Amino acid sequence: MRIGLLGCGTVGQAVVRMLSEGGATITRASGHRLELGPVLVRDASRPRPGVDPALITTDPARVLEDPEVSIVVEVMGGLDPALGYLRTALARGASVVTANKQLLARHGPELLTAARDAGAELRFEASACAAIPVIKVLRESLLAAEITAVTGIVNGTTNFILTEMGRGGLSYEEALARAHELGYAEADPTEDVGGADAAAKLAILSSIAFHSRVLIDDVPFEGIDRLEAEDMEHAASLGFVIKLLGVARLIGGAVSARVYPALVPRGHRLAAIGGPDNAVLLESRATREIMLVGPGAGGAETASAVIADILSILGTHQGSFLHNALADAGRPMAPPGGVVSSFYLRMSVADRPGVLARIASVFGDEELSIRTVVQSGAGDEARLVLIIHSGPEDRMERALERVRSLGDVRGEPVMIRVLGSGEGGDRR
Amino acid sequence: MRIGLLGCGTVGQAVVRMLSEGGATITRASGHRLELGPVLVRDASRPRPGVDPALITTDPARVLEDPEVSIVVEVMGGLDPALGYLRTALARGASVVTANKQLLARHGPELLTAARDAGAELRFEASACAAIPVIKVLRESLLAAEITAVTGIVNGTTNFILTEMGRGGLSYEEALARAHELGYAEADPTEDVGGADAAAKLAILSSIAFHSRVLIDDVPFEGIDRLEAEDMEHAASLGFVIKLLGVARLIGGAVSARVYPALVPRGHRLAAIGGPDNAVLLESRATREIMLVGPGAGGAETASAVIADILSILGTHQGSFLHNALADAGRPMAPPGGVVSSFYLRMSVADRPGVLARIASVFGDEELSIRTVVQSGAGDEARLVLIIHSGPEDRMERALERVRSLGDVRGEPVMIRVLGSGEGGDRR
Repeated sequence: MRIGLLGCGTVGQAVVRMLSEGGATITRASGHRLELGPVLVRDASRPRPGVDPALITTDPARVLEDPEVSIVVEVMGGLDPALGYLRTALARGASVVTANKQLLARHGPELLTAARDAGAELRFEASACAAIPVIKVLRESLLAAEITAVTGIVNGTTNFILTEMGRGGLSYEEALARAHELGYAEADPTEDVGGADAAAKLAILSSIAFHSRVLIDDVPFEGIDRLEAEDMEHAASLGFVIKLLGVARLIGGAVSARVYPALVPRGHRLAAIGGPDNAVLLESRATREIMLVGPGAGGAETASAVIADILSILGTHQGSFLHNALADAGRPMAPPGGVVSSFYLRMSVADRPGVLARIASVFGDEELSIRTVVQSGAGDEARLVLIIHSGPEDRMERALERVRSLGDVRGEPVMIRVLGSGEGGDRR
Repeated sequence: MRIGLLGCGTVGQAVVRMLSEGGATITRASGHRLELGPVLVRDASRPRPGVDPALITTDPARVLEDPEVSIVVEVMGGLDPALGYLRTALARGASVVTANKQLLARHGPELLTAARDAGAELRFEASACAAIPVIKVLRESLLAAEITAVTGIVNGTTNFILTEMGRGGLSYEEALARAHELGYAEADPTEDVGGADAAAKLAILSSIAFHSRVLIDDVPFEGIDRLEAEDMEHAASLGFVIKLLGVARLIGGAVSARVYPALVPRGHRLAAIGGPDNAVLLESRATREIMLVGPGAGGAETASAVIADILSILGTHQGSFLHNALADAGRPMAPPGGVVSSFYLRMSVADRPGVLARIASVFGDEELSIRTVVQSGAGDEARLVLIIHSGPEDRMERALERVRSLGDVRGEPVMIRVLGSGEGGDRR
C-alpha cells in the first residue's frame, strides 16, 4: 500500500517516522504493509531525515497522479492549494486522509461528495483533536446513541493560557508570552486565541454528531483576548473557572453550535482539564456522559490519528489480527514479584519501646526505604502508617513476612500500592 | 439484517428498544436496516414489551440455527450454556456480539479462533466498560501507537463505594449498603468488590492493548473489602485518594496486568473520577495520555455498545452516511438569539447613587433576573460583577445595549456565558 504525502513539516515527518519505526507493529496488527510513496515539499533542498531523496518532489502531480498511490495524506495545511490537490486526488479515485480542519470546515461537503462519486474515502480524524479519537467514537461507537450535545475544550493554546491566568494571576499578555515560551502558541496566535480554530473543530464535530451540515460560518465564535485576570478572580470567588468552550447541542431539532469563553462550575468535569489538554464531553439519549481527554495537538499525536485513518480505510484483517493477539500467546506475562511500586502499610503494633526501630530495620534489610511514618497511639496499641519508597513486590512480600513474625504486630497489616510510583515500565 | 438475541434481561430489553426506537437513526446513519429475529428466553411466560410474541422462544436452536440470522447477540451472561451457544453460532458462520466479560476473559482465544475459521466476526465492546468505547479505540484508533500502559477504574460498584467511604467517612459496610440502595451493587456483590469483575475487563483490555493473550487467570486481583474508613483518612492526610485500579503495562517486553486498590495522588486524573463512573487511561509511545471516562454499566449504555458492534461488523456505508450528513443539509441551524444561558457580566460604573437600581431595572424589564451582585469600589468608579439567571441570548443582548446607553457605564462591559445553566436542549 503506497501512501503519498502532501507536506513534510512537523506532522509529515512524524508520519514518515511512524511508518518506518512502527511498520512492523502496523503490519502485525492490521495485516497491511504501508509503504511511503512520493512526498510533496515546497523546498526540496531542506533535508528530510528518513525519507529516500528519490521520493522528494516539488511536483504535486507526482503524488496526485501516481496510480500506485492509493491513499493521499494531506498535512500541508492552508486552503489553497490543498483544496485543489485533494480534488485532483479524489477525482482519480485515490482515498484521502487529511488533518486540515479549516479546509474540512469550509469545503468538507464538496470533498465528501467528490469522494462518494469516485468511490473513494475521505477521513479526517486528525483534523479535530489530533490523537483523541472523537470522530471515530461519534461516527462509529455512538452512531445509534443519538447525540444531544457535544461540549468541549478543543483548543490547547487557549486552555493553557486560561489555566495560567487562573492559577498564577497572570494577565492575558503574560500567559500568552508563557505559552509562546513553552511552544504552546504559534508565532501568530490569532486563530487560536480568537476562537477560529475551535470553531472549525466544532463545525466538524457537530456535523458528525448531528448528521448535519455544519460549516465554520455556521458557528459564531468569540475568543479569550478580552478576558482579564480579574475575571478569573471574580469567577473563582463565585465557584467557577473560565474555559474556552465549543458548545453544540440540539434545540428543538435544530443544531446550535458556538464557541465562547464560559464560566464552568468548579465541580464540573471540564473544570479539571488544565494546561494544553483537550476534552470533549458527549451526551446522548442512550448513554450518560462520555468524556474523552488528551493532547489535542502534537506531531506524533496527529500522525497517530493519520495512520489510524489509513488503517480504517484499508480495513483491518480483524480475524487474523485478533487471532494473533489472543489465540496465540504474543508477549509473555511479567512475573508479579519483579514489579516495582511504592506501598502504603497500615498496622497495629504493641506500644512499647523499639518497635519502630525493629520494623524499620526489616525494611532496611530488604533495601526498602521508608518515606513517611505516621504513628498514633491508642492505649497499649499504636497505629502505624508507613509509605515505603518504590521497590519490587517480592522484596516487599519478604519484608512483610518478617514484620508479621516480629511479635510486635497485632492482626494483619493492610498493604495498598501507590499509583504512579513504579519504575521499570517500558518507554521509548 | 436479522439479529438473533440470546437473553432478554435488562440489556436484552434495551437492545430491543434501541432497535425499534432508534431504527430510523440507525438506518439513516449506517445504511443498514436491523431487524429483530428470534429471542431466546428462559421463561417464555414473562411479558417482553416491544417483542413480537412469535419471536420469543425457549429453544436455542431457533436463534442459533436460523440461516436468516446473520448476527447473534449474547446478553444472557454466565459461562454455561453461553459458551456452547456461541460455539454453535460461530460454527455455522454467524457473527457474534457479546457483552459477556467472564466468557471472553476465559474463552476468548477459542472463540476468536472459531470465528476466524468460519470467516465470521466476534465483537465484544460491551464486555469491557459498556458504552465507553475503549476496545474500539485500542483496536483501531491506537492500533499503531504502541500502547505501553492501560490504567483504569473499570468497576463502578467499587468506585462508588470508595467515593462514599472517602467523602462521608462511611465504613465499607455502610457504603456497600448505600450502593445496594441506589442500585449500584448486585444482590451478591462478590464479583465486584472482590476484584474479579475488574480482572476480567483488564484481561480483555490488555489482550487488545498489547496484542497478546491475557486471560483472567493471568491477572492477579485484590478487592476492596479489607479497606477501612481509616485508610481513606490516612490516605487523605498524605495527599491521596484510594481507587480500585486495573493496572496493565509492559515491563521488559512482558505484560504485567493486575487489579488492586491503590493510593492515587490527589492531583492525578483518575483521582477525580467519582461515583459509579469508569475511566481508562491509555499511554502509548506515539501519544501522550488519552483518557476515556463514562458510565461503565447500565442497560442502555451496554445496548449502545452492542448496536455499535453490530454496525462495525456490517460496516457503515461511509460514503453515503457522511455524504448525507455533511453534503446535504440535514438539520437546520438554531438561531443563536433563542439559546438560553446564564451570564456573567463585569463592568465599570460611575460610583454614584442609583446606578445599581437603574441597571437592575433594565434586566427586570427584559425579564432577566439577577442572581448575584458583587460590587467593589475604586475611587469614583465601582466594579460591578453580576450573574444573570438563565434567559435567552437576544434578551440579554437587548438588555446589554440599554445598559451601555445608561451613561453610568464606563468602557465596554465584559459578558461571559455560564456553562450548564442553559435550558431548552433536546432530551428524550
